[in-house]
Formats: sequence, C-alpha cells, structure tokens
Amino acid sequence: MRHHILPAGLPTHKYEVDPWRLVEIEFDPEGASVDETLFAIGNGYLGMRANPSEGRESYSHGTYLNGFHETWEIRHAEDAYGFAKTGQTIVNVPDSKLMKLYVDDEPFLLSTADISDFRRELDFSTGISSRDLIWRTPAGKSIRVRTERMVSFEHRHLAVMTIEVTLLDEPAPVVISSQMLNRQDGQDEYHVRIAALGEGMDPRQARKFDRRVLTPRLQRHGRDADSSVILGFQCASSAMTLACGYQHLVDTACDYTASTEIMPDLAKTVFTIDGQPGQTIRITKLVSYHTSTGVPCEELADRCERTLGRARTHGVHAIKESQRLWLDEYWARSDIQVTGSATDQQAIRWNLFQLAQATARTQEQGVAAKGVTGGGYDGHYFWDTEVYVVPFLAATNPEIARKLLRFRWKMLPAARNRARELNQSGALFPWRTINGEEASAYYAAGTAQYHINAAVAYALERYMLATGDSEFLATEGAEILVETARLWCDLGFHATENLNGLSRDVFRIHGVTGPDEYTTVVNDNLYTNVMARFNLRYAASTVAHLREHQPQAYAALVRRTGLIDTDEGSEVTNWIRAADAMYLPYSPSLGIYPQEDSFLDRERWDFDNTPADKYPLLLHYHPLVIYRHQVLKQADVVLAMYLRGDQFEIAEKRRNFDYYDPLTTGDSSLSACVQSIVAAQIGYRDLAWSYFRQALYLDLNNTHGNTDQGVHIASAAGVWACVVHGFAGLEDTGHHLRFAPQLPEQWQSARFGIHHRGSQLQVELLPDGARVSVLAGLPTQIESSDGLVTVSEGEHLWIPRPEL
Amino acid sequence: MRHHILPAGLPTHKYEVDPWRLVEIEFDPEGASVDETLFAIGNGYLGMRANPSEGRESYSHGTYLNGFHETWEIRHAEDAYGFAKTGQTIVNVPDSKLMKLYVDDEPFLLSTADISDFRRELDFSTGISSRDLIWRTPAGKSIRVRTERMVSFEHRHLAVMTIEVTLLDEPAPVVISSQMLNRQDGQDEYHVRIAALGEGMDPRQARKFDRRVLTPRLQRHGRDADSSVILGFQCASSAMTLACGYQHLVDTACDYTASTEIMPDLAKTVFTIDGQPGQTIRITKLVSYHTSTGVPCEELADRCERTLGRARTHGVHAIKESQRLWLDEYWARSDIQVTGSATDQQAIRWNLFQLAQATARTQEQGVAAKGVTGGGYDGHYFWDTEVYVVPFLAATNPEIARKLLRFRWKMLPAARNRARELNQSGALFPWRTINGEEASAYYAAGTAQYHINAAVAYALERYMLATGDSEFLATEGAEILVETARLWCDLGFHATENLNGLSRDVFRIHGVTGPDEYTTVVNDNLYTNVMARFNLRYAASTVAHLREHQPQAYAALVRRTGLIDTDEGSEVTNWIRAADAMYLPYSPSLGIYPQEDSFLDRERWDFDNTPADKYPLLLHYHPLVIYRHQVLKQADVVLAMYLRGDQFEIAEKRRNFDYYDPLTTGDSSLSACVQSIVAAQIGYRDLAWSYFRQALYLDLNNTHGNTDQGVHIASAAGVWACVVHGFAGLEDTGHHLRFAPQLPEQWQSARFGIHHRGSQLQVELLPDGARVSVLAGLPTQIESSDGLVTVSEGEHLWIPRPEL
Repeated sequence: MRHHILPAGLPTHKYEVDPWRLVEIEFDPEGASVDETLFAIGNGYLGMRANPSEGRESYSHGTYLNGFHETWEIRHAEDAYGFAKTGQTIVNVPDSKLMKLYVDDEPFLLSTADISDFRRELDFSTGISSRDLIWRTPAGKSIRVRTERMVSFEHRHLAVMTIEVTLLDEPAPVVISSQMLNRQDGQDEYHVRIAALGEGMDPRQARKFDRRVLTPRLQRHGRDADSSVILGFQCASSAMTLACGYQHLVDTACDYTASTEIMPDLAKTVFTIDGQPGQTIRITKLVSYHTSTGVPCEELADRCERTLGRARTHGVHAIKESQRLWLDEYWARSDIQVTGSATDQQAIRWNLFQLAQATARTQEQGVAAKGVTGGGYDGHYFWDTEVYVVPFLAATNPEIARKLLRFRWKMLPAARNRARELNQSGALFPWRTINGEEASAYYAAGTAQYHINAAVAYALERYMLATGDSEFLATEGAEILVETARLWCDLGFHATENLNGLSRDVFRIHGVTGPDEYTTVVNDNLYTNVMARFNLRYAASTVAHLREHQPQAYAALVRRTGLIDTDEGSEVTNWIRAADAMYLPYSPSLGIYPQEDSFLDRERWDFDNTPADKYPLLLHYHPLVIYRHQVLKQADVVLAMYLRGDQFEIAEKRRNFDYYDPLTTGDSSLSACVQSIVAAQIGYRDLAWSYFRQALYLDLNNTHGNTDQGVHIASAAGVWACVVHGFAGLEDTGHHLRFAPQLPEQWQSARFGIHHRGSQLQVELLPDGARVSVLAGLPTQIESSDGLVTVSEGEHLWIPRPEL
Repeated sequence: MRHHILPAGLPTHKYEVDPWRLVEIEFDPEGASVDETLFAIGNGYLGMRANPSEGRESYSHGTYLNGFHETWEIRHAEDAYGFAKTGQTIVNVPDSKLMKLYVDDEPFLLSTADISDFRRELDFSTGISSRDLIWRTPAGKSIRVRTERMVSFEHRHLAVMTIEVTLLDEPAPVVISSQMLNRQDGQDEYHVRIAALGEGMDPRQARKFDRRVLTPRLQRHGRDADSSVILGFQCASSAMTLACGYQHLVDTACDYTASTEIMPDLAKTVFTIDGQPGQTIRITKLVSYHTSTGVPCEELADRCERTLGRARTHGVHAIKESQRLWLDEYWARSDIQVTGSATDQQAIRWNLFQLAQATARTQEQGVAAKGVTGGGYDGHYFWDTEVYVVPFLAATNPEIARKLLRFRWKMLPAARNRARELNQSGALFPWRTINGEEASAYYAAGTAQYHINAAVAYALERYMLATGDSEFLATEGAEILVETARLWCDLGFHATENLNGLSRDVFRIHGVTGPDEYTTVVNDNLYTNVMARFNLRYAASTVAHLREHQPQAYAALVRRTGLIDTDEGSEVTNWIRAADAMYLPYSPSLGIYPQEDSFLDRERWDFDNTPADKYPLLLHYHPLVIYRHQVLKQADVVLAMYLRGDQFEIAEKRRNFDYYDPLTTGDSSLSACVQSIVAAQIGYRDLAWSYFRQALYLDLNNTHGNTDQGVHIASAAGVWACVVHGFAGLEDTGHHLRFAPQLPEQWQSARFGIHHRGSQLQVELLPDGARVSVLAGLPTQIESSDGLVTVSEGEHLWIPRPEL
C-alpha cells in the first residue's frame, strides 16, 4: 500500500538550523532564485522578494502589492460563449530595494566580490531580514556591509531598509545610490533569459507583458536631500493607480553630500561619503506604497508622504519594536512548538511565518496563491484560501479570517453575474481572480471547478465554529450561503436511480471538475457532491435559524436576496430535498467512492513505466492522455473525507485512502498535507509522517521545482493542519471538540494553541496522549473516553492516545 | 416523435427556377454576402467569390488557392503540453476580378447605378458565371454591361473573365481599369466592420491577421499593353510562394489606348477607349495563379507566363469548349435528375456543381470545409471530406477520391509524430489542418476527435468498394490501415466487465470526442467505438489478405511500418482481439445505445424553454452548460448506424433514431443529411423528406446563417447521399449491392448513376420501385426479392419498393 513515488528520504536543506530563523552562511548563486522566495518579506499587502540591495543578479526582482494588477484581453485561439475575457496579472511595482554601494568607485556585486563572513537571516521573531558580510575590495580594502529590510506588520504601507557600511582598515570614498526603479517596464535580462527557457509552457508561471504596463503619472520631490521622493503610476489597462516613495535617514560621522534625480521610471538619491575607517555609515530608507482602483496619483502621493512622515516621527527603533510586538502576539496565538527536531521546528516556524506574511494586512483583499512573495499564478486568489488558509486563521487569528470572508461577500455581485453567464441562479465565485471577474482561461480546470462555492461556505463554517460570530452569519454569511446554495440547487438535477429493482430520487451534479485536475468536466464528482450537500444544508439551517431567532436579520436577508421561503414554495425546502437526495457514487464491490461516476471505468495510469522526470505529469503529457486514466494530481475523495470527516466511517476512510493514495502523484502542492492528515486519522503513522515532511519541506527543499515563483501558501497552512487535525486529531463537531492524539515518534512533544468560541486553548501532544488546557475564556466541552467533559479556564483534560 | 425544432416549411428562395442555372434577376444588396458564396466559381484549386468586377461593395473580396496558407503562433491563454502550436489560415490571394468601368469618367458602381434588365447566372453546364445589365449613366446614356467569369476545370491554374460594354445610344469616353490587387494586406472597410460586429466570438469564422501576410517578391511585365503582368509574393511566416498574373485580349472596333502600372501590391492596366454607339467593347482577361511551398517566385512567374501563353494560343472559345466538355463528363457521371420539382432539381444540381467546384482540381490537396468559396474555418481540412465527400467521389469520380486518399497517406509522417506527442503508437490524423500539423486550438472539440482516423479508413473502404483498386490498397491503403489500427489498439484498453454475475473482456476507448461536439472528452463514445472496430478489422483483414495473396506487397508493408506479425506476437491478433471485445454501451431498458457511457445519466436539455434565437446553442451557452445535458449538435449514434448500417437491426435503428432525433438540434450542417438518410432507411418518410430539404436548401436559404463564409461542401455531398443511400437505399455489402427504393411522393422519378467496380450503373427511382441498369462494364450482383441476381451490361433489374 506504499505510495509508488513516495521518496525514501527528503534531502537535507542547506540552511543553518535555528528555531527562530532561516539562516544561510554561504552565498549560493545556484540557489538564488529559490532563496529570493524563501527570504522574501511581506505583510499580506506589500511583499518584497529577497533580491540583494545591489540589484543585478536576480532571478526576479519582485515587489508586489496585493491586488494591484494589470488587465489584458484574453485571446482564445478558439473562443466560445462565456469564456473568460479579461486576464488579470499582478504587477511588479517599482523596486525600492536598490541601495547600490561603490567604494573607490568600484561597485559591490555579490557575484563577483571577494567576500567572507557571509550571513543572511530571516528572523521570524523580529520580522527582519538581514545580510552581513565582509568585502575585500579590488583595491584590497576590507569593508563590512550589513543590510536590513523589513515590511511592517503594524503599518500596512511601510517598509524600512538599512545599509551599514564600515571601512575596516583604510579610508575610501563611498557612494551609496539608493533607487526606486520601475522594472515592470524596463529590461531585466536575467528574467528574459528564464522566460525564453521556460517558453511559457508552464501554466503556473506569471504572464509576461510585451507592452508598457505602468504609465508614469507623477514625480515629486522636495528640495532637500532628505525630503521624500515619490513616483506615481497608472496601469495602462486596469487604470489602477499607485504611488511609491522613499525618504532617507543618514547616520554617520563621516562627511557626505547627497543629491536626488527624478525621472518617470527612476528616482535616485546618491550619497557621496568621505568614508573613514571604523566610522559606520548607516543609511535608512523609509519606503511607502499606496494603491487604489482609481484615486488620482496626487492623492496617493499625499498618503505616501503621510506614511513616511509618521515613520520618521516614530523613528526606526519604535517601528522595529512594533514589529516585534505584533509578532509576539502572532506567535502567542499561532506557534507550534515541537521538541525532538530543531530542523522540523525551524521549518514549522518558517511555514507559519509565511502565513503571517501572506495574511497580516490583506485587509479586504484575498490571499494570492503565492502571498506577496512572487508573481506565480499571476497573483490570483483561488479556493485554497478558503479550504487551507482560513481554517488556520479562524483558529488563530479570527479577525483576519473574517476579513477574507467579507472579501468574498463583496464579490457577490460579480459572482451573481457570472452565474447568470453560465445559465445558473445564485452566485458562482470565479475560479481564479483578482478583481472578482473570472480570469481562468482554461475552463475545464478553471470555471468548471464549481466546488469553490462550497469552499467559501466551508470557510464560513470554520470561522463560525471558531468564533460563534452570529452577527456575521446573520448578514454577510447568510447572503453567501443563500446564493451559493441557489447555484447548487440549480446546477444539479433530480433523477431516478434504479438499483436492484428499487428506484429512488437522486440529485446529480454534472459537468464539473473536482479539486483533482487530472480529470476534468466529470459527472457526480464525489468531493463536489459531498461539499455541495454540506453547502445546501448549511444554508438551509442558517436560514431556518434566522427565521426563528433573528426575524429582523431574516427579513433583511429576504429583502437582499429575494429569497422565496413561503408555504407555497420554498427555496429552502428545495435545498434540503437536493441535499437529502445527493447522489454519491459508490462501488459496493470495492467499498469505495469513485472519484466521479465513471472513474473506476478508467484505465489505471502506468506508474511503472513513468520515469521520475516525467513528473509533474501536466508538464509532460497532453491533458487528454492524463484525463483518460486513473491518476490524481491531488487528493480529491480523500480531501472530502478530511473536510467532512463526520460523513465517513473510519473503515471507509481507510478503504478509500488505500485505493486513491497509490494513484495520487502529488503533482499539486495542495496534496501532501491532506494525505498526511487523513493518513494520521486512519492510523497510517509512517505515511502520515512522510507526507507531513513532504508538505513541511515543500518550499525549503523546492520539491515542486517552482518555489522560485513564490511560496506555496496553502501548503504552509496545510502544515499547521497536519499537526492540529492530523497528529492531534482535532475535530470540532459544532457542539464539542474531539482529539485523537498521536504524536509522531520522531518528536518528544508538540504544543499549539487554538481559539475556540472566544476561549484560548492549549494542546500539548505527548507520546501517550494530549493535555488540553483552557487557558482563558469560557468552559469548553471536550470528548474523552469517559464521554463529554467540560473544561473550565485554568483546567486541563488528559486524552490518552487512541488505538487505531 | 417529431423533431422539436423541425421547421414547418422552408422559405422559398429568391432565385429564378432553372434546372441548369442559379439565376438572379434583381440586384439584392441585402443578400450580397450570401450571393458572393452561392455564385462563386472554382475548380478545387482556385476559387473566386462572386464579387462584382467593379470592386467596392462586397462582404468579402475573396480569392483562394487550396492549401495556400499563412501560419501563426497560437497563444493559449493557458497553455499545456501537446496543445497545437501553429495556426494555419488560408490566405486571401491578390484579387484579379477587378475590371472597373468608367463612362464619361463616372464610375460604374452597382450600389448607386441606375440599372435595368439585371440578370446574374451561374451556369452548371458551362461552368460560367455571368452578369448582364443596362446602366443609365448619370449623364443619361444607356450602356449595356456584360461580364463573364470562369475558373477552368481543365486548366488548373487558369481563370478567364470578360467585360463587354456596348454604348446603346450616344458616344462616350470609356475607361476600363483592369487590376490585380493584394487585398490580404490592404484595407477592406466593409470587412473590418463585419469583423468588429462579430467580435471574433463565432469560431466558424476565419482568422483576421493584424500584420502583413504577403511579402511582395516580384513584379514583372513586358513592354506592350497586351503583354503579361505578374506579381509574386511570399507568406511572411509559412514562406509559401505565389505568383499571379494576367494578360488581356481586346476586341473592339473603337479606338483605344492602354497603359500598365505595376506596384508591389497592385498591378493595373487601364484601357482608354473612344466608345461609339453599337460598337461592343470586349476585353478578356486571362488570369493565372501558381503556388508552392517554397519554389522561388521567379519560377512561379515563369509558370504563370506559360499558362497565360497557352491560353492565348488556345483562344477563349476553345477554353470554354473544354470547360463544357469537362462538365458534360462530370454530369454524365454525377447528375441526379428528378422530375416533379424544378426547384428541387435546380437545388440538387447547385449542390452537385459545388462538389465539382470543390474537388475537381484539388490534385493532392484536401477539400476544405468551404471548398474554395470562402475563408470559413480558416480553409482547413476536416474529417467530413472522408465521411461525406469521398463516398460521393468514389461512386462518381473515383480518381479524385484516390487523390484525396493519397493526400492523407502523404500526411502519415506528421500523423505519426502527432500520435507520439499524444503518447500513442501508430498515427493520429490532425482534426483540422492544412499542412498536416494539428491546428485545432481547442482540443476538446478538436484533437479529442480521434474518430478522424476511422474516417480515413472508411473513405478507403468506400473507394475500394467502388473501384476494387487492389494495388492502392496493397500500398498506400494498407499503410494507412496499419497505422490507424495501431493507434486504436494503443488508445483503448482491455477491462473486465461484470454483468449479471458474468464477467467478460471488453475493449474500452476513453477520453475522446465523437462527431457530436455538444459533449466532449467522453468515455466509450458509441460512434467512435463502432468505427474503431471497423478500422481494426479492416486493417486486420487487409494485412491477412496481403500476407496470403500478395507476399511482395506484404513484405514491403512490414518493411515500411515495422509491423510485428509473427507467431510469437502479432499486432494483427491484438487488433482482432480489441475489435472482438469492443465495448458498445447499451441500455437494455431503452433498447438503445447511449451516445457515450454516461450519456443517459445526463439531464435532458430544456428545449421547451430555449427560444429559437438561442440556436445554434454554441453561440449562446457556455460549453459547460451544453456538455452536461442530453443535447446533440449533430447525429452521432445515428451517423454510426448509417456508416456501419450492417451492424444494426432495423428495429434497433428505429429505437435509437426515436431517442436521439428529438435531442438533435442540427446546429451542425453535417446533421440534416444524415438524419434524412437514416429516417428513410427506417421508413420515416416525412422526416426523411423534411431533413433532406433542410440539407438541400441549407446554403440556398442560408439556414445556418453563415453561408457568407462559404459553401457547406459536406452537406452538398450529403444531399447526394440522401438520394442514393436514403431514397434509393443503396448499400454495398462488399459482395453485392442492395437497394430499398422509396421515391419521395413529391417527385415523379429520380435518376442517378454510380460507378461500381469498373461498371457504370444507372438507377431510376419510380413510385413503386427502382430500375437498376448496368450501362457498361462487368456483370453486377444485386439483391432482389428472389435472392441475388447477376445483372449484365445492357440488362436491368426491377426492384419493388419494400414495405417498411
């Protein structure tokens, strides 16, 4: 039953082990493209790839602002009705990371410099990325160069970067050229080379534009060298506006002069310093970005100035303090502490830190597949935010989860239009989007994934279970549920199934694609039907609850949605009828659920004759070849068994896992974590551990080969779920919590906190069970071997490891 | 059981009824775009739309040379492995139709001129298109203007056009400006307007280029006004070359001068004539086009000169004579004569004439979906040549059928490569192509139509039945069969089916699209499996026959194809095993074959709530909406029952027809004729007649709304099949012929000839049966109520109308 491509062991990564830092002690030109991602910093709004401040050598000089995108006309080689029309691509905004250094007029460039004592760190507790090294110049002088960079978690629009130069032996003229450069429309040779190599065949890469994207609209700077410098741009097609500016703080005992030049695509402040040995030259650059869908650049420039002014007033020390404070709180809510493997501890924290960087300041934007660490997948939002990221947030940072749900709620008008375009009632959320419109140009693996509707309902449920925020449910939540349920009810149809002489009413959903994209446009996808059933029931019970208990909210809901809910005819009754009749394909002989109605009729993929270099299959086989076989990109039935765990018996989960796991390539980064969770739940310890490690080191080991495009955010959230829902076996029944602790034998303990209906719980996994404590808040009901136990603040409950 | 959208009656078209001509006696600006197609002339190589020689008002000024195409890079909005890379689009070659007329320096323009006695004709017996009218000029003078145009059936590269101007009352200066204009790269305002309206959403339209296609390479003309003038071009991307030239013959008693101007995109000879009343001015323009995949333009220009020189030597009279002679022979072989409806007779001949125009001089090119009458479908070759056109040709003009089969044979190397790209053995013919490479950008309704392989085998069978050309079968034919059978055998797979406690081996073919494009990428498409079975068996029996009877040809085949056919292992045995186990989905309760394995699980399309203006569905619903329903674009199971008629009982055919016909929209022009044939075969007289008329008047009434894009050639061939295989019920069992005559009651008789194994037969349908005569050739075995009867030359057999 072993997975056919499960690697025997994972390669050990090159980084120094440190529980709170990612550390690199040797400059690695070969790994630079991946390191740019792994050391990237961001706050969910503003993200900067870890390009060196000297510029030049880079895989991709990236600075991204969540939601700031350019649009372009999709040209289908063969068009058809309802195909997505407008492409959306996140823009690489002007690069403010540049602080070039010259000593004796010789440029410092990492690739050619004679360096020693190199050390690069990304610190998860301070939120600061830094690099330290000693440069022996061509003239033989020794220079210590230290750079620091942070994107503020506290101040959404602010980044701070510092360069410190110390001449260690001899004096020398030092020049620091601090720039802000529009790279989106400029040349980036290395990038071009990569694009040519890639030939654009990898659909996961970001789109390249062959025209100007950012139209310069504004250049502003004051008279003094330390006054703020601001550039303004507008996207040629989307018309979104942007202002970005910087201001410097200089701290040195050396004499210096400074001058600023400003051009449409480049602002540059050059410091010419009379460098003296032992006198550290420290230049701090405050940077601000503001964006809008249409506010004039002048107004955005004013906002930049205010952000910069406030930062100067606060001072760098205070900004760093607020950063640490924010992270202290984040880790208090979100940390997973393990003992037994410092490497795993580091990797877990790296993943959790990525979740902070991807979500902290999204405000009411979504979370892109790569967060703000790269342009992969064009910066689009997908369903994985709802299924992978929101559950983590709901249990640790519910306010952010709420914002993400409001983001979907605000998308409802566009989703209603899209449903209409696809001939359906209700609302259909776009498979991939930034601005709310469907941007998926390949509908079979895009628009056909109707299950995104249920993903939004699922995220809402996770948020409600964690918070009990009934006000949100009564308003935005209920509206989402009504419109998504409507779509399911209209999309499917009632039919009569005849089985063994008996006929029964079944509700079928045809022509959809499930999470597994290695079969598309199928009938009765198990995952979709299970999730649609949940969605329908959740909508029905929510409406019924409002009708009975919150008549005002109910009336408002009916008004907003035109819900028909009378004795003569009730949409709600139809939802219940559809849910109760929901058809789930089932094979009595195998005791498993076919992934879709005809899945078991397909030929099994010939894994034995598929060499390792043919994975991921999507890059090496025509979709038709993949689609006609039993082969999975990612967990599908197994994912349903995780998300709706109470709908399946454990023996059933085992049978299905046994069947599907050997067919699952894991070509999708969304797969390994789900395989680990369900393996843990059914007692497959070794597999659970192995898949967990695949998820844990997915980016750190670049196992999917595209970490250079950005961090796999959903997988990072999946790592958290592996521990909480896999190893701890946490389930929330809606009435109480249930645990099935099984600490991996490779660890001595693991500890994490969760937020549950206003209470703060701590779970400590130990080899023979788990200690669950209520640290603060209301008493919590927890299932134990003695039945339900109410655990109050300050108490704890011991749950022994179950036999599986 | 009536079809839900079967029109009650067909609109009567506007043309004068004439058994041998299409005639228009009033200029109809509204209908001009369709008339350009209906009156177009061509010979299968060179085609000219019926644009007025004055130029200007035109929907599309089109001149096409079969196979002369430009390539372009397909840019998929989301690319994937194996997607077609190179688009191919037929080029609108320089327009030589222009012979502009000025009297008193006033231009003659149909749209503004004061005209009378208008008459336009396309003569099916002379192959000449002509227009006659009297123009009252702005100055009040009366002028008779007569133009004639022909594309030679005898001389592949030659067209001849004449303008005759006669001043009826007063003298006047007359200017005739005869031109050759590269419109492909010029402005064509009307065309641009249409393109903007269409927004490119209709996938049936030709692609518009937004760059220069034809690079001027050569301009050549002699010193005299009547010497030849030649332009040469090369396609910017495909590098195909073209030369086109003209030469004039002037016949008038009036004084005149002439001068020629030549520019890269335009050659122009202007005749300035001192027009005298009653003195006819006749200017004849000989035109020649030569194309190549790479021969230099200079060489092609030489060929043009030779064609023009020979035409001048022969003289116009002889050219017209040879045209009539060619057509006499064509009609002797191909005509269908009906009595009882002159309108139907005219329409039948118009369709048969289109078949001549589309196929006569294809040589070893294919037949595009629109022949050479328009740019629709980009000038691509599809499967309909093999399934619709070749059977007609095999029975009437077998030499052309042979050429078309050789065209596919020459495509084998590309088809082998394409199979490899799709992970299969053997060869896979491209779904749509000009140059042999797959050009279908939407694979679900393109590449996935693997059934094109069987269509080629089917065409071969039709050709073999008609000719018994065993030499062709032993060489090109066998090679095609081996490679297509190989693909089927590799594409499908053996599985075990358990039914009612019994298990049996079945051969299944998954992930394919059948002829009906309203469901795509399905499993076990009945049509595909039936045709693949035939293909496998035909290949197996052919190889077995060669092995036994033609050892040399067999050895050559093994050498060419690497066929494994030994006692240790035999591909042939595998083909037979696959064919014998071929799985055909079947519903015992309905007694029908589901179109594909899950077809009956789908929801039925809601025809009642689909307004008429929502057809064709493909232009008004997203593919996902269409795909998930029981709704057909075109006959699919019903087509299988026609093409492999002997595999189905008549009661079975009825049940299936009854089931599918109400689900068939006929949104494809390939459908009506097939529905008519099978309706006739199962005794549904009224339906057979109704669908026949839909096919017969499909273009003449522009019922599909896109006749402006060109003639629907396959449907024209389907009209022939309706009479021969539908009303006459002809079947060729391979051993003998069988008829089931049932003359429509609207006719008194119908007569046609067929070529059968070197014999010429004539079939005369009468109300109570058919008289089948062997006009020439060997004795022929024909099934009658008394068993098999051998009919010898000069004899006939009476076959009474069967009871159905």
